[in-house]
Amino acid sequence: MDIKRLNSTDAGFWSELDQLLDWEGVSDEAVNTTVKNILRDVRTRGDAALVEYTNQFDRMSATGMAELTLDMDRLEAALDNIPAETREALETAAQRLRTYHAHQKMESWSYTEADGTLLGQQVTPLDRVGLYVPGGKATYPSSVLMNAIPAHVAGVEEIIMVVPTPDGEVNEMVLAAARIAGVSRVFTLGGAQAVAALAYGTETVPPVDKIVGPGNIYVATAKSMVFGRVGIDMIAGPSEILVVCDGKTDPDWIAMDLFSQAEHDEDAQAILVSPDAAFLDQVKASIDRLVQEMERQTIIETSLSDRGALIEVKDMDEAIAVANHIAPEHLELSIDNPEATAKQIRHAGAIFMGRYTAEAIGDYCAGPNHVLPTSRTARFSSPLGVYDFQKRSSLIMCSADGASTLGKTASVLARGESLTAHARSAEYRIKD
Amino acid sequence: MDIKRLNSTDAGFWSELDQLLDWEGVSDEAVNTTVKNILRDVRTRGDAALVEYTNQFDRMSATGMAELTLDMDRLEAALDNIPAETREALETAAQRLRTYHAHQKMESWSYTEADGTLLGQQVTPLDRVGLYVPGGKATYPSSVLMNAIPAHVAGVEEIIMVVPTPDGEVNEMVLAAARIAGVSRVFTLGGAQAVAALAYGTETVPPVDKIVGPGNIYVATAKSMVFGRVGIDMIAGPSEILVVCDGKTDPDWIAMDLFSQAEHDEDAQAILVSPDAAFLDQVKASIDRLVQEMERQTIIETSLSDRGALIEVKDMDEAIAVANHIAPEHLELSIDNPEATAKQIRHAGAIFMGRYTAEAIGDYCAGPNHVLPTSRTARFSSPLGVYDFQKRSSLIMCSADGASTLGKTASVLARGESLTAHARSAEYRIKD
Repeated sequence: MDIKRLNSTDAGFWSELDQLLDWEGVSDEAVNTTVKNILRDVRTRGDAALVEYTNQFDRMSATGMAELTLDMDRLEAALDNIPAETREALETAAQRLRTYHAHQKMESWSYTEADGTLLGQQVTPLDRVGLYVPGGKATYPSSVLMNAIPAHVAGVEEIIMVVPTPDGEVNEMVLAAARIAGVSRVFTLGGAQAVAALAYGTETVPPVDKIVGPGNIYVATAKSMVFGRVGIDMIAGPSEILVVCDGKTDPDWIAMDLFSQAEHDEDAQAILVSPDAAFLDQVKASIDRLVQEMERQTIIETSLSDRGALIEVKDMDEAIAVANHIAPEHLELSIDNPEATAKQIRHAGAIFMGRYTAEAIGDYCAGPNHVLPTSRTARFSSPLGVYDFQKRSSLIMCSADGASTLGKTASVLARGESLTAHARSAEYRIKD
Repeated sequence: MDIKRLNSTDAGFWSELDQLLDWEGVSDEAVNTTVKNILRDVRTRGDAALVEYTNQFDRMSATGMAELTLDMDRLEAALDNIPAETREALETAAQRLRTYHAHQKMESWSYTEADGTLLGQQVTPLDRVGLYVPGGKATYPSSVLMNAIPAHVAGVEEIIMVVPTPDGEVNEMVLAAARIAGVSRVFTLGGAQAVAALAYGTETVPPVDKIVGPGNIYVATAKSMVFGRVGIDMIAGPSEILVVCDGKTDPDWIAMDLFSQAEHDEDAQAILVSPDAAFLDQVKASIDRLVQEMERQTIIETSLSDRGALIEVKDMDEAIAVANHIAPEHLELSIDNPEATAKQIRHAGAIFMGRYTAEAIGDYCAGPNHVLPTSRTARFSSPLGVYDFQKRSSLIMCSADGASTLGKTASVLARGESLTAHARSAEYRIKD
């Protein structure tokens, strides 16, 4: 298999790296128009439009929303329908996620100044959240846990899940995960019509305050169009892993770690950085041998040859510089003393430290979230967390003395900005 | 002056309220096309395009970027050029903002499990932030403080400010505020071209990781188009205040508090809610009398008659329900015991508690940020804060024992999702 081999000492290395990283989602006018129409239609006609689109796109024959609603008994039944081993694994993962995410919960805070003025922030959960879960082949129960549990830990009262069931096919593991994660209600809806229902509400589907979860281009486009009316999570690009290895990890392990990203889809990006040229050769040999055994061989080969790379660097300092430039979604530090190196990482969605920490463990059950910033957005954004389901209100309570003192400063600044009503409003509170 | 008078006992009250609140920013195809072209041009031609657009739109005659760059000496000079009283007020406000915002700084955290596995999150500041400051009539030094100080407190190394100087006119207060707030560099650029420069970088302007600050429709459109490549703050709608009053505050004070919002622009929204019908009449009389004295009388009158309202409610419980439905940017609780009531507020950008806490005090110098969620987005978003200039990386370091235990769970779930490379990557770490 062909995989790009780069060397940081080559002229043009950084621009070649930038070219490799470059990714822009295509915005298609046809998709935009379709989505715009669906949003308007569901907003206007509510349930009737929802049922029609669902029958059309998912090849269903529902006569009303009752047939597109799953009650709690149905989710309970799903728990019984899946293998005991799977149920136990989901429950273990969920419990670990809850424990980890509880650490993220923000609390209200305030302080009182000498003159009695109180300042702070009050933290509250969102009222109601919508969770989009894709149907068909890319239906991942782990994704249900990762999106719903932080909302549940935050204290969100109602978590509404939508999941399309093309041809009526229901994924039992997904429903079981929903039950475990604390989802309140499930509608078997998908596409832009499901996003519209969550954003605007219909006779049956209550409007939510934020929509999270992955979806295809129609879902992503619909989410960005309803943003502002509701909150949304980041629109994710292709998944990525950057493995930094000192050359002392089993090359088979590293090859499989790269595969675990590459198998997601053809656009996924898996890159290995090492100061050890011979090790890069060994990993290449492992890749060529192991890929033959993989069920998703074609996807892995396309991903690695189109977007993968093996990068030789001078030393670990340069490896860190490359990692900070890439700002990867997943960063594996397969090295000695990973804690010291992790402190030098300024940008990464998640840092997997040491030779034992396979990214796959973090994807499912270590505790941290697997919804992470992609496409270099780790420069300015964070993993999905409890904090995404809470918000803050500033608290200001001036004492009479505080208002008098602060009113004078406010008055000077307001008059400097020619905002006289601001000034006079503050001046009313100044004592003579 | 005509102001809408609503009564919560009227049939159709809630839908009338929704109509009053309804606001959708117009997306104009002509603006989109103009902005798209400017972004592409600056991205391709860099400084040359920047200078051309600036000369064209701001009626300048610069021959190169040197003339559109202000150095630290120029900012220092601005500090000396403004009145001593203004400088003192800016410095007082800045110091109070720093003290308040320091409470928001997130810290890294981690915990270690019994088997030695470490989990946590590492918090880091953004590397470089761009601050857009509008030129012309709406140039507000307070806005420079409010946007730059949280970034500075977060530890952002470089804060790049852009501010257009139409016809070469420079606002000394804005430059002085930039110096006080810790801005690193200033370019006299504006519009979509300034946003393009910050997002893509040019020969002179370094690319940033996030762009914050208010701007006109071209700036807002440009920001939403570069979102993803860089982070952005919320796109703000018109400013709003909701005053909840028990009828025991001086009606002149309340009238002026409503004016302080209404004077911003014709689209601003000022609403008063009270269970006391006679008090609403008194405030109406104060409005009619005081508006005659206001410098921005026409703006205030248009804003109050087009988008304002005086709402009579049954009791304080209903006032709270109205407040939570509106989810206002600014909520003034001009009542006794505001602390108890504030706890019942689920959605508000900032809560101004008690009769002395004029919103204007919070706008300038109380400490909290004046960049707040508008148009009901307080249901899912928060005031601008230090947390907007920090991001988190998940930390996962499995011990050999931890990887073995967790690997088993990950393997079951990965195989359940047919992701075999994930499963095998985890299984390598399972001990026999």
